Amino acid sequence: MHFDHAGIATEDATELAELYGDLFGLETVHEEVFDGMRVVFLDCGDGYFELLEPITEGTISRYLEDNGAGIHHLALATDDIESALETAREHDVALIDETPRSGAWGHTVAFLHPKDTGGILLELVEH
Amino acid sequence: MHFDHAGIATEDATELAELYGDLFGLETVHEEVFDGMRVVFLDCGDGYFELLEPITEGTISRYLEDNGAGIHHLALATDDIESALETAREHDVALIDETPRSGAWGHTVAFLHPKDTGGILLELVEH
Repeated sequence: MHFDHAGIATEDATELAELYGDLFGLETVHEEVFDGMRVVFLDCGDGYFELLEPITEGTISRYLEDNGAGIHHLALATDDIESALETAREHDVALIDETPRSGAWGHTVAFLHPKDTGGILLELVEH
Repeated sequence: MHFDHAGIATEDATELAELYGDLFGLETVHEEVFDGMRVVFLDCGDGYFELLEPITEGTISRYLEDNGAGIHHLALATDDIESALETAREHDVALIDETPRSGAWGHTVAFLHPKDTGGILLELVEH
């Protein structure tokens, strides 16, 4: 697997995208409203920063209330998400998504629970 | 700039490296003791996961006490770290390192303060 993106919780994805453009030259390559969030993808080489701004109450709005803005998760890309989930199951990793589901940008995703992955909310992504 | 690595604070870098090898096929490509930490780099395509295990008291041991294991910072690679710092200065971003310093793996690094980068501790890296 390889790095796909870092998910970043923010109160204002547009402002943060502009700042990261100015500071680091990262360009917005995709933007959509998905699952009650404004989602902005910034190109950072072979991967992305995925800016997540809540529009309605949900996981990210609660994350912001509890933690403030910051890094929410890391995502690794796989060609075979079913097999990756099976491997996680064999290692007794708690799955947030027992089966893959539709994620932003039309990708198929599944999240692993941070309690079994070194404290990191890890997303598997199949493009 | 492009993604260089995600820095991950952990109580046991060896154990986490083994788990991420088993779960995700990520291979250890570099390991060293640096600045009171055991540092393990896992290859994840064009970037790395940098596992940070404290050996002595310091930033990472304090981070673990306050937050537990998890994502500590994100790093972007640049060919010109002095110029990148100058750009940050022009945008009134607070700098943790006013001048670049030696980081792990012989790289030159400088950290930007999360209060001005959307809540994310951002490291600039020149290889």
